[in-house]
Amino acid sequence: MPQLHRDGPVWIIDFGADENRYSPDFLDQVEVFLDELVADREPAALVTTATGKFFSNGLDLAWVQAHPEQFLTYVHRVERLLARLLTLPVPTVAAINGHAFGAGALVALCHDYRLMRDDRGFFCLPEVDIRIPFSLGMSALVQSKLTPRSAVDAMTTGRRYGGADALAAGVVDAVHSEDELLPAAIALATSLAGKDRMTLGTIKERMFAHVTAPLLQGAAG
Amino acid sequence: MPQLHRDGPVWIIDFGADENRYSPDFLDQVEVFLDELVADREPAALVTTATGKFFSNGLDLAWVQAHPEQFLTYVHRVERLLARLLTLPVPTVAAINGHAFGAGALVALCHDYRLMRDDRGFFCLPEVDIRIPFSLGMSALVQSKLTPRSAVDAMTTGRRYGGADALAAGVVDAVHSEDELLPAAIALATSLAGKDRMTLGTIKERMFAHVTAPLLQGAAG
Amino acid sequence: MPQLHRDGPVWIIDFGADENRYSPDFLDQVEVFLDELVADREPAALVTTATGKFFSNGLDLAWVQAHPEQFLTYVHRVERLLARLLTLPVPTVAAINGHAFGAGALVALCHDYRLMRDDRGFFCLPEVDIRIPFSLGMSALVQSKLTPRSAVDAMTTGRRYGGADALAAGVVDAVHSEDELLPAAIALATSLAGKDRMTLGTIKERMFAHVTAPLLQGAAG
Repeated sequence: MPQLHRDGPVWIIDFGADENRYSPDFLDQVEVFLDELVADREPAALVTTATGKFFSNGLDLAWVQAHPEQFLTYVHRVERLLARLLTLPVPTVAAINGHAFGAGALVALCHDYRLMRDDRGFFCLPEVDIRIPFSLGMSALVQSKLTPRSAVDAMTTGRRYGGADALAAGVVDAVHSEDELLPAAIALATSLAGKDRMTLGTIKERMFAHVTAPLLQGAAG
Repeated sequence: MPQLHRDGPVWIIDFGADENRYSPDFLDQVEVFLDELVADREPAALVTTATGKFFSNGLDLAWVQAHPEQFLTYVHRVERLLARLLTLPVPTVAAINGHAFGAGALVALCHDYRLMRDDRGFFCLPEVDIRIPFSLGMSALVQSKLTPRSAVDAMTTGRRYGGADALAAGVVDAVHSEDELLPAAIALATSLAGKDRMTLGTIKERMFAHVTAPLLQGAAG
Repeated sequence: MPQLHRDGPVWIIDFGADENRYSPDFLDQVEVFLDELVADREPAALVTTATGKFFSNGLDLAWVQAHPEQFLTYVHRVERLLARLLTLPVPTVAAINGHAFGAGALVALCHDYRLMRDDRGFFCLPEVDIRIPFSLGMSALVQSKLTPRSAVDAMTTGRRYGGADALAAGVVDAVHSEDELLPAAIALATSLAGKDRMTLGTIKERMFAHVTAPLLQGAAG
């Protein structure tokens, strides 16, 4: 389950040491942390990361299989989280310590910056191979963060990007060794902390209004 | 006239050995091939190419001059073809063997990937110089595939891109010698063949809904 | 105050030797020059530049403070100028001789091409730090010209780009020494002069319709 740490102005959410799939309990916990961060008035920035082999493997498909009638409601909840992260009124940095698959990769894309471990782990949108098309909002999200070339690659081929490939494709902004990943993310977040929250939030909301509208309207697929 | 070949899962449409302009007969033939490809249920991918000096010189202006009253209907037919290629439910690769001008360049842009011969032939959108502004749909198409910088270059200056320039500008994804162009395109298409058609089609439709909408609504210019 | 020079087909607007803020008188003068350029029928291209340390420091905040009740009207006037420059029916090149801040940077972004002095001066959108969120139109403008990565950098961090950084980020297209900046801009503009005005104007209007619509509708912030 996610845990919250603080390092000066930087709020660090560690998604956990497992596959870190987005179960309802997981989402509850992350939302509580974000509520706390948003209610706070001090200079702040957010780093998300995890421990071990996975950043996040995305949707909790086991839970979905056990609750098929709640599938659309569940996906829409994840979409609302994506919209919230995308427009969070503080700077955000994802420290991708391991595999970021599916909705886990989408969460990474919501951040202002993405740093990735250089030796292990893949960023991957496997939707085309697992036969779950992106919703309109998820599609708009990926396209709002990647170049046209990288969006087609990532979305239509299910390509797995290691650190070097992700950097070359502009999927992430820098790569670091395992030891240096989190310190680099914290240093970047610290350097950005302190922006006026209302201003930054409004800037992001306007930049990504064409993404949050379909995300908040609900899963099309 | 276009011809269809098969190489394993790869459907290869060869536009011909002439200027390969989009006469109504040409469009009829391409549409028949696409109908056949779409009706098929086997793993597949599409490669388009041509033989000789031209990939395609685009609109059949001689036919248009002979049928001026059908101009808008004709352009709209081409726009519907662009929309269909852009969202075709199989992976698509253009092997640009020679000049791709005007609507010929637009067809190339509809593909998921573009490979280009490295020593001869130009990719060019001459619309600004021949005084035919892009329709809203064609404009959206170019902008959906190129970076902002390359879109302004290509659309407002009529710049002719040779292979190396096209690669540097992100207009194509790779360049090859004349002999290696088609084999490289077939190899890439083979590696991508087999995606679930409904999933891939839906992914592309959602990615490019803002392009197909004006294309299908009809030529604005 | 802005001055107009002519060099063959190239119209050169020099914004002045001061901070070149957009006072109402400044805007009057620029609009008169643009009216003249648009009314002319000869082949033409536009270069904007300035003399000394500043390209433009943007909004005239002293005037705004003296006329707070006219703030929205004033900002909307600047937005209309941005829309006009963005879709001007001749090729446009900004020769960024010095600091381009805030609305000064937005004006630079409206041009088809941006050249920048390589040794001094910054391109900067300080809005996030001075707590003035971009209007919807201004936001769309920046995003229409920069890559997703550079747009987030420029808009959410207030980063100051020197020439080399601006080139690397795609914010400008080339850098030159102080002496070679204006000649290079004039040479580029000369090479592009002579496009059919109606065609080029229509092409730009359609490319940027999603930007001019919110700019002309009025400042949201």
